[in-house]
Amino acid sequence: MNSDSPNAVVLVSGGLDSATVFAYAQSKGYRCYALSMDYGQRHVSELKFARRMCAKLGAVEHKIIKIDLSELGGSSLTDHDQSIPTGDTEGIPSTYVPARNTIMLSVALGWAEVLDSRDIFIGANAIDYSGYPDCRPEYIETFETLANRATKAGVEGATFKIHAPLIDMKKADIIHLGCKLGIDYSQTISCYQATFSGAACGICDSCRIRKQGFLEAGVNDPTVYL
Amino acid sequence: MNSDSPNAVVLVSGGLDSATVFAYAQSKGYRCYALSMDYGQRHVSELKFARRMCAKLGAVEHKIIKIDLSELGGSSLTDHDQSIPTGDTEGIPSTYVPARNTIMLSVALGWAEVLDSRDIFIGANAIDYSGYPDCRPEYIETFETLANRATKAGVEGATFKIHAPLIDMKKADIIHLGCKLGIDYSQTISCYQATFSGAACGICDSCRIRKQGFLEAGVNDPTVYL
Repeated sequence: MNSDSPNAVVLVSGGLDSATVFAYAQSKGYRCYALSMDYGQRHVSELKFARRMCAKLGAVEHKIIKIDLSELGGSSLTDHDQSIPTGDTEGIPSTYVPARNTIMLSVALGWAEVLDSRDIFIGANAIDYSGYPDCRPEYIETFETLANRATKAGVEGATFKIHAPLIDMKKADIIHLGCKLGIDYSQTISCYQATFSGAACGICDSCRIRKQGFLEAGVNDPTVYL
Repeated sequence: MNSDSPNAVVLVSGGLDSATVFAYAQSKGYRCYALSMDYGQRHVSELKFARRMCAKLGAVEHKIIKIDLSELGGSSLTDHDQSIPTGDTEGIPSTYVPARNTIMLSVALGWAEVLDSRDIFIGANAIDYSGYPDCRPEYIETFETLANRATKAGVEGATFKIHAPLIDMKKADIIHLGCKLGIDYSQTISCYQATFSGAACGICDSCRIRKQGFLEAGVNDPTVYL
């Protein structure tokens, strides 16, 4: 990678998927700028993991942008009075945060335009996931169209690309990819109710999907569970 | 208007257009929830006007969500080291804030979903405006498509509508509409470099478009200029 490499903005949460995407984007030759959101999530400790991972993987810069989505309500992920579902739920679970990925991609788009970058990476996954609408291919495609209509760069002829390289992968395959790219998954956290020290509950949706992924991948699960 | 009236989220900046849109949405029978963004704009005094206007017009609630877009840079509207253009400029001016309307509409979408509202109003205008890409009809249409793909409500069959009733109107016609709806435009501010007390420079793009609008409308311009 050198200064001629194209810039990319990579959304980084501190979790398994986004760490993998970050390493993947780097392996494709991008100079990666990492973006995280401090949005009032109850598992704010994920940002500590994000910071550490970005430093370790060599992000050109890592910005944590603050916007308090708990002011809008509507999600057990930002509302501490609701409990996080730990069993099977019907339909889209209460951990869905209204418009969260749209807000995050929008901020990423703004930064990408400023950086003269045309490439935004997101760790969205539509296979082993919780059924969130803003993780599906048709959503990503529509955001890409929007990006090109929303921006000065787009109007002037640039083409933004929203990369979601994990979108069709099973969690086990994501873990295999990350292992190949050298990711140390003990330095990532996926739990919706992670403690400040970074221990995972093991029973929320996100923990269960992650746990099952390591099991199916035949890779030792390095997560610290409560 | 009663409790059976549909809820709407209205983006409110403190300026002439959004005040008109707010009154317009009310006139159509919506219970209006106002949303403003404290995004690091240099004319932050517009939020004082927004607050006052929302109280006067009877917003059910007015939220001001904070996200510091000056951290991303790339705009003379958030970067105090750049000057605001005051003459004719070629192309899209430096006051364009990368992805700003997309970020604001995304937050509005999140709130709309929580409020069980399907209607979002924005004062975008593509006639007497500064050429911003995220004020054009094709942009608004694409965001509407996105809204329906991004959300739990959309997936479950709801249809969001992004209303931009001013999009094809000349500024003079917007002023006529607002006057008919009883807007007191002395209580709005459009200037990009408005002072804290709310005086307008009279020479930035936004001031010039507004001034010309009052002139063409044949309506007394109540703006306090420096």
